Amino acid sequence: MKLNATKIPIRVGSKYIAVLNEKRAHFLDLHAGDRIILKKKGQKPLRALLDITENSELKETEVGLYEDTWSKLKTKYGDDIEIAVAEKPISTTYIKKKLNGERLTTTELNEIIKDVVAEDLSDLEVAYFVSACYIHGLSDRETADLTRSIVNNGNKLKFKNKVVADKHCIGGVPGNRTTMIIIPIIAAAGILMPKTSSRAITSPSGTADTMEVLANILNQAPKLTKIANKVGGFITWGGGVDLASADDKMIRARHPLSLDPQGMLLASIMAKKFSVGSTHVLIDIPIGPQVKIKTKKEGRILKRRFETLGKNLGMKVKVIFTNGDQPVGRGIGPSLEAMDVMKVLKNEEDAPSSLREKSIKMAGILLELTGKAKFGRGSSMARKILKSGKAYDKMMEIIKAQGAKRTKLRPGNFSKIIRAGKDGKIIEVNNKLIAHIARTAGAPKDQEAGVYIHKRLGEKVKKGEPLYTIYADIEERIEYTKQYPLNKAFIIKK
Amino acid sequence: MKLNATKIPIRVGSKYIAVLNEKRAHFLDLHAGDRIILKKKGQKPLRALLDITENSELKETEVGLYEDTWSKLKTKYGDDIEIAVAEKPISTTYIKKKLNGERLTTTELNEIIKDVVAEDLSDLEVAYFVSACYIHGLSDRETADLTRSIVNNGNKLKFKNKVVADKHCIGGVPGNRTTMIIIPIIAAAGILMPKTSSRAITSPSGTADTMEVLANILNQAPKLTKIANKVGGFITWGGGVDLASADDKMIRARHPLSLDPQGMLLASIMAKKFSVGSTHVLIDIPIGPQVKIKTKKEGRILKRRFETLGKNLGMKVKVIFTNGDQPVGRGIGPSLEAMDVMKVLKNEEDAPSSLREKSIKMAGILLELTGKAKFGRGSSMARKILKSGKAYDKMMEIIKAQGAKRTKLRPGNFSKIIRAGKDGKIIEVNNKLIAHIARTAGAPKDQEAGVYIHKRLGEKVKKGEPLYTIYADIEERIEYTKQYPLNKAFIIKK
Repeated sequence: MKLNATKIPIRVGSKYIAVLNEKRAHFLDLHAGDRIILKKKGQKPLRALLDITENSELKETEVGLYEDTWSKLKTKYGDDIEIAVAEKPISTTYIKKKLNGERLTTTELNEIIKDVVAEDLSDLEVAYFVSACYIHGLSDRETADLTRSIVNNGNKLKFKNKVVADKHCIGGVPGNRTTMIIIPIIAAAGILMPKTSSRAITSPSGTADTMEVLANILNQAPKLTKIANKVGGFITWGGGVDLASADDKMIRARHPLSLDPQGMLLASIMAKKFSVGSTHVLIDIPIGPQVKIKTKKEGRILKRRFETLGKNLGMKVKVIFTNGDQPVGRGIGPSLEAMDVMKVLKNEEDAPSSLREKSIKMAGILLELTGKAKFGRGSSMARKILKSGKAYDKMMEIIKAQGAKRTKLRPGNFSKIIRAGKDGKIIEVNNKLIAHIARTAGAPKDQEAGVYIHKRLGEKVKKGEPLYTIYADIEERIEYTKQYPLNKAFIIKK
Repeated sequence: MKLNATKIPIRVGSKYIAVLNEKRAHFLDLHAGDRIILKKKGQKPLRALLDITENSELKETEVGLYEDTWSKLKTKYGDDIEIAVAEKPISTTYIKKKLNGERLTTTELNEIIKDVVAEDLSDLEVAYFVSACYIHGLSDRETADLTRSIVNNGNKLKFKNKVVADKHCIGGVPGNRTTMIIIPIIAAAGILMPKTSSRAITSPSGTADTMEVLANILNQAPKLTKIANKVGGFITWGGGVDLASADDKMIRARHPLSLDPQGMLLASIMAKKFSVGSTHVLIDIPIGPQVKIKTKKEGRILKRRFETLGKNLGMKVKVIFTNGDQPVGRGIGPSLEAMDVMKVLKNEEDAPSSLREKSIKMAGILLELTGKAKFGRGSSMARKILKSGKAYDKMMEIIKAQGAKRTKLRPGNFSKIIRAGKDGKIIEVNNKLIAHIARTAGAPKDQEAGVYIHKRLGEKVKKGEPLYTIYADIEERIEYTKQYPLNKAFIIKK
């Protein structure tokens, strides 16, 4: 059947979508979400997902093409497009199999991921896959297969080094920019550490957001490989490099209900390590009432799964539990965190010790894990590298290689100090509330916005002493933060 | 934030969708599937679902409105539209609860269905609800609550009669147009039977398609109520009347993977009965290797669930098992089936006995169930009504009331006879294959297309005798059917 092409001004990335008038679709016995083949003279046949419109301006004699589809077929208005019905991909039957509670084979999982990347599965079908994994779970073998499939169907970075170090933190702790201190230490020790980090989704800043204050966030694989080979590491945004792109597409389907199927979460994290060729990985699981993992029991289950997955993928994985009771460092928000990081790297006197000590500890473990330091000597080696200024120099090399941005860092122009309401001891810090406040103040979009913490858990305070300062670039954003109980972020007991 | 309105030429029914450029969405911290409030001066604020487009023709200063949204807000090009972020509906948390394997309360299920009808849940979220129901199942109580919610959030037909009869068949058997014989018999007996039927989805014809050959398929509730009160019944397409519209929306989400969560299937069927006020319902479960229900064991589980649901809803429900080994009647396809139906109603000599006897049996059970006939006397009463010509007269009243269409029925202009390849006895009839052939010949779109069956299971045949005839309105459609093994539809054993 030949129809006239007309353009629909929507672009959805690499997915090809065509729209038919309901009557035409009914005549062709087609439903929304079905696949069709679009044939235009002189162009390769294009497989597309079908959308249907009711009594629209789109005529029965027309086919509407989303922008991506339009340009892929090099269409002009009124061009003849031939429509043919296409089969559903076989992967839909595997998704149904998983919904029925069966385990999927290596090949079946790979087929699903292949079609996710090729955008031959609709968002609805990916959602069904997510829910099946969420409810039935993924076995250790399935998790390893899923990880490999994600890596094999995405871009990879290849290095000749035998040892490639990496780290990951199961988020939820504000501040906590250890990555930006660990990488220069490890790279200064001569170990390759190419790091792809995430941007904030619901938090005030991700490592990629904070790094972006100091340097360009690059996304070209060849350039990144060159930088890593030259200076021993980089810190960039994983999403931009298109590593593990299947994962990004599944995250989109998980968003509406914020579903975190554990097997998918593990595969998602480890695929990013695997795709840059990591051999030694340190996983940080903060535990606390206000972070993702609330109890040691939960933590131990996750630890076992990480270790098993690492073994199945042929990686050395070490999992540590850290304290997630309060923010790490004092700044929360891109610039404020970058300031903390630089203070630690420069060995400044007022550098936040929580951030320094946690980074040294973790860098030490990585030095031991990779065999660079003897068991029990990692921390002191890491501290030496940091104190010597070599970590700072390495960070400056990395920044220069990626392309330096700001050199002078500052907090936002507008601020509000929150003071203690009474004398006493700080017995609780509400991580989530602080994150909300920082985000409402503008972080991470407004780089200078956020929160600066003056007091830490266990410290004694006098009534009127500053507990924390809210910074914003736009004055009214300070006002917005008043929707939160600002005096509940720190609980003080007499 | 104020943006300029521009139109997207897609209409999706009652769902309101707005589109933002990716950069604008990122700036507003919005994701696809989030809800926003659209405010236009002089119009009520409108809640809409957000879609996002990449680097599109849609500018950062613009908001794209789907046709429905555009006209609802009475928009003109360039109008200022203010955008505000809206909360997700609370029903999304109930969907997550169900995904987590918990039971939902009456209120929670009603909230989900309310939002499904209001189109405040995205297709993705409805898919998550479907998959949760599919995997975890729905308890008897949840199924009854779901049914009531579907009915309460949709249109209803109200009748004063104390007894309202209904029937339903769990499809899969070609032909089988008993409804069109049972309704006139029951209505002729003085019992109200307002019947909403389905159209074919994957079969060669649904009751609504076959009825449409003879009469208009009406969809206005007041008119249907009037007809039922006047002549005692009608036969129309349920989908057009917008009864149980939540169900149609859930079916759309079930389509891509053809998911049939049992509780949803039950609720879907019974909601349609409940919304026309049915008090006595007969459910026909054909059992056979080529129909939906393959074994008596499966059938018994479904029977128990139907009976329990009926009890919970305060309906009298009777479930019977019938033979699903071969088509009922001889014609398959709208016109061919309508011809069978009229032959039975007219008591013609060559009327297919399988269709007549099954209809009489079922009408008899309904007459007993509703107390019109004494136990054991229903069939003979039904047969008497049919033989007397009263059922035919009633059918003509119904057709007239709905608006008569064709009076002269005929099969398609092109045909092909499939003959026995050898002498022997017919030991198997392949329902599915016959349905595929009829559909490929053009049914139900081409009303005259389909298959006419000459021989039945158990009959002896001689080599060269006609087994069945394929009819089509378009000659090449006969050719298309050759993709199937036409000589495998009937298995003959020497």
